[in-house]
Amino acid sequence: MFKAFVIVLVFSSSLLFNGCTVEKPDISTPNVVIIFCDDMGYGDLGTYGATAYTTPNLDKLANKGLRFTSFLSAHGACSGSRAALLTGCYANRLNMPMVFGPNSSTGINKNEMTIAELLKQKGYATAIYGKWHLGDKKPFLPLQHGFDEYFGIPYSNDMWPVDYDGGRITEESVKPSKANYPPLPLIEDNEVVEYLDGLEDQDRLTTRYTGHAIDFINRHVDEPFFLYVPHSMPHVPLGVSDKYRGKSVQGMYGDVIMEIDWSVGEIIKALEENNLAENTLIIFTSDNGPWLNYGNHAGSTGGLKEGKGTSMEGGVREPAIMHWPAVIKPGHVSDKLASTIDILPTLAEITGAQLPGHKIDGVSILPLLKGEKDASPRETFYYYYHSNNLEAVRMDHWKLVFPHNHRSYENVLPGNDGFPGPYSPGKAQYALYNLRRDPGERYDVKEQHPDIVARLEEIAEQARTDIGDSLSEREGNNRRERGRMINE
Amino acid sequence: MFKAFVIVLVFSSSLLFNGCTVEKPDISTPNVVIIFCDDMGYGDLGTYGATAYTTPNLDKLANKGLRFTSFLSAHGACSGSRAALLTGCYANRLNMPMVFGPNSSTGINKNEMTIAELLKQKGYATAIYGKWHLGDKKPFLPLQHGFDEYFGIPYSNDMWPVDYDGGRITEESVKPSKANYPPLPLIEDNEVVEYLDGLEDQDRLTTRYTGHAIDFINRHVDEPFFLYVPHSMPHVPLGVSDKYRGKSVQGMYGDVIMEIDWSVGEIIKALEENNLAENTLIIFTSDNGPWLNYGNHAGSTGGLKEGKGTSMEGGVREPAIMHWPAVIKPGHVSDKLASTIDILPTLAEITGAQLPGHKIDGVSILPLLKGEKDASPRETFYYYYHSNNLEAVRMDHWKLVFPHNHRSYENVLPGNDGFPGPYSPGKAQYALYNLRRDPGERYDVKEQHPDIVARLEEIAEQARTDIGDSLSEREGNNRRERGRMINE
Repeated sequence: MFKAFVIVLVFSSSLLFNGCTVEKPDISTPNVVIIFCDDMGYGDLGTYGATAYTTPNLDKLANKGLRFTSFLSAHGACSGSRAALLTGCYANRLNMPMVFGPNSSTGINKNEMTIAELLKQKGYATAIYGKWHLGDKKPFLPLQHGFDEYFGIPYSNDMWPVDYDGGRITEESVKPSKANYPPLPLIEDNEVVEYLDGLEDQDRLTTRYTGHAIDFINRHVDEPFFLYVPHSMPHVPLGVSDKYRGKSVQGMYGDVIMEIDWSVGEIIKALEENNLAENTLIIFTSDNGPWLNYGNHAGSTGGLKEGKGTSMEGGVREPAIMHWPAVIKPGHVSDKLASTIDILPTLAEITGAQLPGHKIDGVSILPLLKGEKDASPRETFYYYYHSNNLEAVRMDHWKLVFPHNHRSYENVLPGNDGFPGPYSPGKAQYALYNLRRDPGERYDVKEQHPDIVARLEEIAEQARTDIGDSLSEREGNNRRERGRMINE
Repeated sequence: MFKAFVIVLVFSSSLLFNGCTVEKPDISTPNVVIIFCDDMGYGDLGTYGATAYTTPNLDKLANKGLRFTSFLSAHGACSGSRAALLTGCYANRLNMPMVFGPNSSTGINKNEMTIAELLKQKGYATAIYGKWHLGDKKPFLPLQHGFDEYFGIPYSNDMWPVDYDGGRITEESVKPSKANYPPLPLIEDNEVVEYLDGLEDQDRLTTRYTGHAIDFINRHVDEPFFLYVPHSMPHVPLGVSDKYRGKSVQGMYGDVIMEIDWSVGEIIKALEENNLAENTLIIFTSDNGPWLNYGNHAGSTGGLKEGKGTSMEGGVREPAIMHWPAVIKPGHVSDKLASTIDILPTLAEITGAQLPGHKIDGVSILPLLKGEKDASPRETFYYYYHSNNLEAVRMDHWKLVFPHNHRSYENVLPGNDGFPGPYSPGKAQYALYNLRRDPGERYDVKEQHPDIVARLEEIAEQARTDIGDSLSEREGNNRRERGRMINE
């Protein structure tokens, strides 16, 4: 009796699918689109509280997908964050620097496995259109790390020999510290195809990356693909096309975010037009928090403490939206801890691709995508920063901060219209924060919770043994080597 | 040709209404329900970012109505805030104290017009079920200020001769400072009908107020009514009924908010069952921000600075949801400035009732309810606090703070499980904040915006001339007298 009932149910369910001639998608080979912003703040999307401009495409994506409220980039600055995203490891495990400059003789070690290489096991077509920032010499460029195609700039868009002068460039606007930088190259695959030497060039970056992304989608309708779009924006110098210039009451920063939202909309449209949206996992997030000393040319943390280049929540907590209609139920919000390093192992679980042989730090968060109610795949997080400093650790909504010096954006005048203000010297004290009630990290409650402090200290000890900690002069057992030119 | 077209349209539209036998409601006499929490933080609802418990009824109300992101209570403490809500005036214009204690010989002056008295002009039935806190002597009780019915406690639920001892009361838990307080009275109309002398009594308050509110709705199906439900919760000592005890992973505070959400759901259900929901304006907000030195028994500002009893955003910015299907389109979020003092003049515009003859401070925000895109009915806001201190002024998203001392919750250990922690001495500096990018009031930008500082200084001067400012030793021209026993 019971068996018969089950059979009928299965039968009707398959009828339903066949009735409207929808083929059930193969959810072990979804297309994967990662859209990665640069220096976007936690408060910078409509669905995360921004009100001075609208982000309708991203808000809709969140409403139809999964929105995270405690999603952390694994590092507070560009290169470290991107290395972590692509390898599933804390940047400090890979000996990555915070930021690669031009003509760097290092990059990702060829022994590391990137998401592109992972998905290559399963025959994915792979492409990156945007900012790479993991080494600009040929051995370190994307095509040597699993990508079939590349179009974009190899590092940050402010790494050029010029700076602002009221928005346009003049002789006087050459910044002494950057005077010997080469012109900003635009690379296609392995070759420099152009140099960007004016702000007008920056204005076109979002549009150009988007065009390449859509072309790639249209060319890969019949095979699974991994499309990585690391936007140069909203990193300074801000650039925006005429179609969005002046559209936001927040000024240029708002315009730039509106154009990124447009870009997301164009990518969704291309997926829908090719009937690919249902089985495409779109992940939208950013590398680190806002560069607050740029004042009105920076984003907002939405009230979180400090910004880019710190281990405070404003430095690493990011908007994160995941959309995959075949698997993710609409309208979910998750406050579970998750990080960019979890994306690679999640994709490994989804596709059945083999993880690298060496240790990684990410965990699969597929249970969160599936909406499994009691799942907490990530229980802890290490806030590492430069010189291999372990600056804080986290368990659930508890964060223990270790004493350290850091750049601070408080008690100084932020810059304006593209000119930066200074940092102030920040001194973080030993403190426990309950981020659930105190997302702004204002109220130290360590004296009330010795048990939680003890547990977090144990977690920190694991990190020190494993990856090390310059603050306590510990060498980790499992730190690996960065890729160096001499190896090639 | 054009005229004919218009006529056809009007005709079809009226057909549509008649076709489903829905009578068009008279939107000049909506029922009005104001649900007013006590010490609820800006981050305490699901739709405002809370994640450790759910508030499905309030989230749904927001999704179907209008949600404000810059709605300010007009005063940072209980009595001042309630006086402002009911009269449409800054509490300082009325010479109100921050907080009335038991046996107060003052209250609202009988010459002031409350919302209840305003709506009485139009024949509304009026009732309050909950915490009054505008004077506990008979001349100052609700029935003397326009309400037909009252059931509730006359002041805060911690104004009784006992305090916590691990959650229950013992001899030793009598707090010296409160030892000579009378037992906490529960008043029906003008008479004390009960004394609350145990925490068990507090556990039942939300349920009891809700029961009275529903009974009132059921008794007034055929006439317009004004129902005011000022909950005693989530003010300490927290109380929650068994049906919500232990339901939230956040502990008792979360349980209490879940029960308030339940209460809102019950009120909505009663309106719907009586076919009144379409033409009822429901307003949900709170009197002031969280009392943060109560630690885990206090709410969260969601990252805003400081809490109850301050002029920082954490002290006065509140969740605010307005729901009125006949007029408010679903799903709107407004970042326009609005305040509790705007409710009275809004109701005057809606109903055509006469405003009081004397000056009030509120402005009608009906254009925001109607979704008029360019409307900004409130352009400025005065942050007044005790001793008639003008502590800050606001224009749009700009806030100018004047130097003042304040209670601070930073750099001290918050309390736990119902026991309060201490305050620390806060010293606010002269500073300009751009709340759009910096909701946490962390980055002073006055040096960048002398024009905006000058404009805000003009606004402050208007306030000083009108209401006065103890900080600059100015007497306002239009301050009025509190009601005193001697007058009666």
